[in-house]
Amino acid sequence: MVLQDFRTDLRKRLVKRVGSCHGSDVKNSVVRRISILNWIGQYDREDLVSDFIAGITLGLTIIPQSLAYAGLAGLPSHYGLYAAYMGSLVYVIFGTVKEVSIGPTSLMALLAVQYTMDKPIQYMIILAFLAGLVELLMGVLKLGFLVSFIPIPVTSAFTSATALIIVGTQLKHIFGIPSKARGFFQTLYSLATRIVESNPGDLVLGGFAIVFLLALRQITQIPVDDKTSRGKVLKKFLWYLSLSRNALIVLITSAIAFKWNSSGEPVPFKLSGHVQPGIPGFELPIYNVQSGNVTITYFEVVKELGSSLVLVPLVAVLANVSIAKAFSAGKIVDASQEMIALGLCNLLGSCFSAMPTCGAFTRSAVSHSSGVRTPLAGIYSAIMTLLALSLLTPYFYFIPKTTLAAVLICSVVFMVDFSIVKVLFRASKTDILAWGGCFCVSLFAGVEVGLLFGILISIVGLLKVWVRPGIRQDSIEKQGHRYVKLSPETGIFFPAVDFLRTKVIEVATEQKVPIVVDCSSVIGLDHTSTKGMKELASELEKVKQKLILLNLKPSLKKVLQENNAEIFTFWEDESEAEMENNNVARNMA
Amino acid sequence: MVLQDFRTDLRKRLVKRVGSCHGSDVKNSVVRRISILNWIGQYDREDLVSDFIAGITLGLTIIPQSLAYAGLAGLPSHYGLYAAYMGSLVYVIFGTVKEVSIGPTSLMALLAVQYTMDKPIQYMIILAFLAGLVELLMGVLKLGFLVSFIPIPVTSAFTSATALIIVGTQLKHIFGIPSKARGFFQTLYSLATRIVESNPGDLVLGGFAIVFLLALRQITQIPVDDKTSRGKVLKKFLWYLSLSRNALIVLITSAIAFKWNSSGEPVPFKLSGHVQPGIPGFELPIYNVQSGNVTITYFEVVKELGSSLVLVPLVAVLANVSIAKAFSAGKIVDASQEMIALGLCNLLGSCFSAMPTCGAFTRSAVSHSSGVRTPLAGIYSAIMTLLALSLLTPYFYFIPKTTLAAVLICSVVFMVDFSIVKVLFRASKTDILAWGGCFCVSLFAGVEVGLLFGILISIVGLLKVWVRPGIRQDSIEKQGHRYVKLSPETGIFFPAVDFLRTKVIEVATEQKVPIVVDCSSVIGLDHTSTKGMKELASELEKVKQKLILLNLKPSLKKVLQENNAEIFTFWEDESEAEMENNNVARNMA
Repeated sequence: MVLQDFRTDLRKRLVKRVGSCHGSDVKNSVVRRISILNWIGQYDREDLVSDFIAGITLGLTIIPQSLAYAGLAGLPSHYGLYAAYMGSLVYVIFGTVKEVSIGPTSLMALLAVQYTMDKPIQYMIILAFLAGLVELLMGVLKLGFLVSFIPIPVTSAFTSATALIIVGTQLKHIFGIPSKARGFFQTLYSLATRIVESNPGDLVLGGFAIVFLLALRQITQIPVDDKTSRGKVLKKFLWYLSLSRNALIVLITSAIAFKWNSSGEPVPFKLSGHVQPGIPGFELPIYNVQSGNVTITYFEVVKELGSSLVLVPLVAVLANVSIAKAFSAGKIVDASQEMIALGLCNLLGSCFSAMPTCGAFTRSAVSHSSGVRTPLAGIYSAIMTLLALSLLTPYFYFIPKTTLAAVLICSVVFMVDFSIVKVLFRASKTDILAWGGCFCVSLFAGVEVGLLFGILISIVGLLKVWVRPGIRQDSIEKQGHRYVKLSPETGIFFPAVDFLRTKVIEVATEQKVPIVVDCSSVIGLDHTSTKGMKELASELEKVKQKLILLNLKPSLKKVLQENNAEIFTFWEDESEAEMENNNVARNMA
Repeated sequence: MVLQDFRTDLRKRLVKRVGSCHGSDVKNSVVRRISILNWIGQYDREDLVSDFIAGITLGLTIIPQSLAYAGLAGLPSHYGLYAAYMGSLVYVIFGTVKEVSIGPTSLMALLAVQYTMDKPIQYMIILAFLAGLVELLMGVLKLGFLVSFIPIPVTSAFTSATALIIVGTQLKHIFGIPSKARGFFQTLYSLATRIVESNPGDLVLGGFAIVFLLALRQITQIPVDDKTSRGKVLKKFLWYLSLSRNALIVLITSAIAFKWNSSGEPVPFKLSGHVQPGIPGFELPIYNVQSGNVTITYFEVVKELGSSLVLVPLVAVLANVSIAKAFSAGKIVDASQEMIALGLCNLLGSCFSAMPTCGAFTRSAVSHSSGVRTPLAGIYSAIMTLLALSLLTPYFYFIPKTTLAAVLICSVVFMVDFSIVKVLFRASKTDILAWGGCFCVSLFAGVEVGLLFGILISIVGLLKVWVRPGIRQDSIEKQGHRYVKLSPETGIFFPAVDFLRTKVIEVATEQKVPIVVDCSSVIGLDHTSTKGMKELASELEKVKQKLILLNLKPSLKKVLQENNAEIFTFWEDESEAEMENNNVARNMA
């Protein structure tokens, strides 16, 4: 009977517990993760129209960009499109920021190519898969704070260097000089020495494309009287014209190439060449890689990818979170959710042969100014990309290489930003060092090394404070009672304890008065600093001097008092100085 | 005439300047560096006698130790003596702490052998040279603070692991089992599986040596009535007996071996074998190394030595500074001078074929209890070592290997210290992690990896504070004026700015009151945090909420007010809340 009772009770409890955590809790947390469930219920006609327009506009940007970014990543152009649709689709379901458009970006392309250069294409896809996995993990384990270790000066230097390197590598297509040179300076050198080999066709068309793109970028600045309805239409038209400039130049120059080709004469500029039509099927990117006659095992591939498995996800998450922050305006960004969404985009994308992807600032700005309402807009740009892949690939043959180079150059050149340097010079030495270090090392040794270097400098800057904290020194005299007050401006953790000790002994040797250490800023003590403080106190005791700790937290007091309580004197506030003075006077009397 | 005046004036100025900096200043700084000049003037007869006794006593310790440490470092025994005299001599001139005795140590031997194992002997000498160079540089550039990045838990774990590993490797000599096993666990495993191969002769002699050494170590504990003059003599005798136990056991067991050998019968335990007599000549350790038929260039050797070039000097400096601190008792140790002295000891030593050296705690304790007065004591131990090298080497042949192993085991086994673990468990999570990490990794992957790992964990622990600072939240209501005060306990540098931003927006969304951020602990702002604070302020402004910064340093106020001063409100103290309230009331009236 008792057993029966116990069993019933146990079952009830179990049901209750399972119910509470596997029922509503789990359901809640799943709903919370599938972001679309939070807003699709309120989706209305107006949202639909807005998203449709924004999606189509975005498609016009993402298609030519993707073709160019694929080239930058050292892949055939259609791989860019492979990466452009799955991200958009997955983000519709899991994304939280309506402006974000996941797809190939110049940052990802240039960062990834450092690790996959001259390797089979599968390396890039495996990298996308593993980067996705890491992003997902970062989201689930709430490791997003890791991104805060990349400060703005480093981001800025990294972005500027990336842009410069991209411009450098693309110039060879504009000049029509085939070159295998790598690195920023080698590329420029090889270009300078071989400038006479330039291909006039590429140069003329590339120059035209650049002028065209820059002009259309500025076209919205034309003053239009937007109070008349005609003016409004014109303004809208100019805006749309500016927005579709990449698609337009690709269309125009391809048409020229097509015409030229049809006329039977040789085309005087280089074309993209054959593009694989169709959409790749599903394949889990966990496989050995065939390179010529050699089989490289999955494990070896992962080993070769090395630090990219941390850097690529880190930069991707950084980019996404920055965009999310820029467009969230006062709302809190659920960074974990963004990482999970990005991770799933890359995981699923890589199963369909996508390269690593993340959000792009340029595209987000397009979405924003097209009046996007929800992440659903991504569906339309994804459909456009899929249509391009299935229908347009025969025409991709005619896209001049120099045009894609022009598209790239014109989209990254405005990322170069030296104005920050002036600000940093006034801000802090560490910031300017981190900027300069990251920028120079990126140009000389590659963006991935530069990024790590910049982060390292910034972290060393942080540690500096723990090694040599500022210590204010005041000589105080209160009613005949004299003492020196030392106020360290940060906590005394292990690297600083020797510094403080030296300072205290120095002062104690000079002036034979009690030393008061103001511990208001001491937020914790580790074993090393505890021991150091105890040693210091007994050293002073030996020479008959007093160490007084002011404003120390009670919990830390307890730690210090262990074993040898008598060597420390604690003051809650400085008025105790007088009390003590009176005590001494009384004792002496 | 004017020109003449000008020239005279110029010459006078030049002479003055050169005089002031090249005359007395330089002389002063040279005198300061050559420490002996500071005290040799006051050197008297009493000092001489004390130093002589201490020096001889030290010699009795350093000779058997050196022979054993050379074996530990994988070198023939006489290399230990090569390293034992030059350090003592150089330290006489440049050292500041009379107790320090520079020579081979178990720490240095075990650390260095990780990098030079199975390599030609020259590797060890080149390492000593370069380590000396780095130590010298650390001293000149005042980089001694680097040592503060090794916290006590890591030092303790590193020392314990080193001692355990040494005991492990020496057990094979005690058991007389030749084994090439490496690493702590492999050595123990190989010993356990081959225990039947033990050599009874080695085992008996080794066991006897260990018992002898441990007994003599305790002999000073025998209660002696030291009030009678006979008791005093007895006490002194016991103390000396205990001190010379290493020398005694080497002497006794060598004598046994010598007798056995003279009797014509085979000696039943392994002997040290032929020892090169004589003192090596001067040779600058900058040379290519011959290994069999292969020539290894100097550059390659340096490359192979890799991280040892940082770790060996770091540990050496750490050991020296700790000893100096332990014996300085309330005086400030000139750490730079100690580094310069140590560097010169190694630089000069390596030119006479020395392995890397540093101060040893055991020897310093011997010096201290022998009543050392000045670093001059080192001269006598150096002379003893040189005599041993020139006269005693034929007899070194007969030192049983098992005796040296016993000497090593008995001198390191008391370095194993687990009592700290209990303390650390109560102290901090980072400390216990650093201890455990360093200890385990040292045993599994070598002491050098363990040391780096422990330091890394400790640094990550420091960074944690910058990423997620504690933020106290108080809801305050003063005369109808309500606000929420957020007080971060440390400065807001770049890793923390997002954390603070999220917290502020969270609170601001919940409670529609002004947010006061108490900036008392904010010691600086970098570019990232400045920008973050500005963004935060304008985000709050958009939703018509106020961000008030309390107690911000004036210099930082200026940085924040640049460009957009109006978005921040600053309070000097909280009484301004009431004033503002009155203002608002007046404005409304």
